[in-house]
Amino acid sequence: MADRPADVTVDVAVIGAGIVGLGIAWQVCRSGRTVAVIDPAPATGATYAAAGMLAPISELHYEEEDLLELTLASAALYPGFIAELGPATGYRTTSTLTVASDAADRRALDDLRLLQQANGLGVLPLTIRSAREAEPLLSASISAAFSVPNDHQVDPRLLAERLRAALETAGTGMIAQSATEVLHEDPRDAGSPTTGVALSRGGVVRAAEVIVANGLGALHLAGLPVALPLRPVFGDILRLRVPDHLRPLLTCTIRGLVRGLPVYLVPRTDDTVVIGATSREDGRPGVSAGGVHRLLHDAQVLVPAVAELELIEVTARARPGTPDNAPLIGRVAPGLLIATGFFRHGVLLTPIAARICVELLDGAPDPRWKRFHPDRFRAPAPQEVSHA
Amino acid sequence: MADRPADVTVDVAVIGAGIVGLGIAWQVCRSGRTVAVIDPAPATGATYAAAGMLAPISELHYEEEDLLELTLASAALYPGFIAELGPATGYRTTSTLTVASDAADRRALDDLRLLQQANGLGVLPLTIRSAREAEPLLSASISAAFSVPNDHQVDPRLLAERLRAALETAGTGMIAQSATEVLHEDPRDAGSPTTGVALSRGGVVRAAEVIVANGLGALHLAGLPVALPLRPVFGDILRLRVPDHLRPLLTCTIRGLVRGLPVYLVPRTDDTVVIGATSREDGRPGVSAGGVHRLLHDAQVLVPAVAELELIEVTARARPGTPDNAPLIGRVAPGLLIATGFFRHGVLLTPIAARICVELLDGAPDPRWKRFHPDRFRAPAPQEVSHA
Repeated sequence: MADRPADVTVDVAVIGAGIVGLGIAWQVCRSGRTVAVIDPAPATGATYAAAGMLAPISELHYEEEDLLELTLASAALYPGFIAELGPATGYRTTSTLTVASDAADRRALDDLRLLQQANGLGVLPLTIRSAREAEPLLSASISAAFSVPNDHQVDPRLLAERLRAALETAGTGMIAQSATEVLHEDPRDAGSPTTGVALSRGGVVRAAEVIVANGLGALHLAGLPVALPLRPVFGDILRLRVPDHLRPLLTCTIRGLVRGLPVYLVPRTDDTVVIGATSREDGRPGVSAGGVHRLLHDAQVLVPAVAELELIEVTARARPGTPDNAPLIGRVAPGLLIATGFFRHGVLLTPIAARICVELLDGAPDPRWKRFHPDRFRAPAPQEVSHA
Repeated sequence: MADRPADVTVDVAVIGAGIVGLGIAWQVCRSGRTVAVIDPAPATGATYAAAGMLAPISELHYEEEDLLELTLASAALYPGFIAELGPATGYRTTSTLTVASDAADRRALDDLRLLQQANGLGVLPLTIRSAREAEPLLSASISAAFSVPNDHQVDPRLLAERLRAALETAGTGMIAQSATEVLHEDPRDAGSPTTGVALSRGGVVRAAEVIVANGLGALHLAGLPVALPLRPVFGDILRLRVPDHLRPLLTCTIRGLVRGLPVYLVPRTDDTVVIGATSREDGRPGVSAGGVHRLLHDAQVLVPAVAELELIEVTARARPGTPDNAPLIGRVAPGLLIATGFFRHGVLLTPIAARICVELLDGAPDPRWKRFHPDRFRAPAPQEVSHA
């Protein structure tokens, strides 16, 4: 990646080169605008750790039904998004198998299935026997299994690399610096029209439109007219290599509930498996020994042969959490878009985030997504309390 | 480290720059001889993984009493060995605490204590209460505890670095190549006097004495008159960082037995802890997921706060095992010494290995160590079988 000398002038400056920033930059570039992407260390944050499940159905949680329309819309965009990029993204349309460990886990998954089916989602109960026919290394002692044919996967590291290559081919500048401030026509008014982005080594990217897509990094960016309600939610994640005699360990993604806690195993075509992910708000960016222990334990409960794999990587990263677990996406000032807070869903939501941003730039936003506007958590106007 | 151009002529060529090879080279250097050390990647093998416990007493195993005299002799040499090198070796003379998890573990440790006491070794039973006064983060549910005041520790990575620095100061050449063959006066007779060592990039180190101290690498060395009965015994080992609020996690080394399996926790002065070590003969050089899981589990059984540490490194290495778990050390041809097969005891046995080699070079070997000669496993002459 070339480190462009400042100053640069482009139509749109995108801050952040994780999967979301890269995906947005690419679609903005395809819309005919010139783009610069600003990131001191592209694709090394949450993208580096992410497992890459494209799983709107099995990721449906209670009280997150609002998010479902967005995740389903993004999942529907994925085949076209990938087709434009070409191969080597690790995109796989194999189904997801959801399994329960003990009886309480089975009841929890049964309840979740009712919610999923009430939302018209395709979730098929399987007998343990047929689940084990599909995945012979699955433990004989699981208590329930469901197939989710439409929940797929991608390899976030490969996808980020493909997006970077596509941007480079398109002549998009990558600027390996930190963005420090969004600049405005009136320097004292962060609500005035945007003029560009100030860089950590002193240069400026001049742009009439700026898109803030740097995850938790947005908290350290000056010149925003809104306070972003982001918090770091840490996750530990493991990568393991399957030895010859166990290949393939799995053919589809396994998502399990083990004593109430989620664990997943995502098999890749290179005979590695990604196991994740804990969800910690303990403020500790390092890999948690307890977290690694729990993941290895729970993964072995579901697939005992995990014990025989080679542990090749342990990683922890922070994901940008929001109060309602949905992203912060929308226009907050003339020329200034926010696209952050993707939490567990950054990889899945990349195509829709890119589409929303292009629609906002075009001045033709889809009204359905207005509910994800970054200022939705502002305190409502005080109301009279009626005393009974 | 300079990569000396071949050809080099020295008094003694030492093959292998793990802790044993470096220790031998240093003592040979101090004996007034010129030395060259040959290793393509110094201190990256078993030394890199080793925890560095200097624990002849708690490492005493049944049927390994023969080894005890050697390990005790080496432990006695350690203070002087370290004093010559100066600080920054991580040498600590804090005691070792041996603890049992369940009742069966307690019986096993009780039995081992009888063996240790029968050998005159200092092992003091502690009440659980006094063990936890000494180490407050020890689990309340351990079943027995013993203090071993004379079992100490060193940091093998720091010690190797100090030895390399000392050798460099003394002008000893480090040759960053592989040794391929021990050369002899009569090229067809590996029992004829040694003339030097052939190197992987074509050069030769000329030396009247060659010491083979490259662990399992000795199996790939041509020109040896004996077959070395070495096998790789893999071990997984973890390094963890203690967060501020838990410092110090431990003040002394904990060695535990958890459901019959050994686990140890070695605290370092830099607020890291080393947890090890599995013992695998599965032929797999990578880190074992099952091994890491077991270590994290068993360490938490003894010290629950381990769950709160940061996992900063997982490593696996092979140690050179022998049929009787004792080293192969002795002269096998004129000018040719073997010093390998140190298995679990390489760090502890470094000072005595160095002393034995210097005594052999001087022609004044201590007769006690003849029983560790590399040819001790040769089949005895056939005997008449008496039929009852």
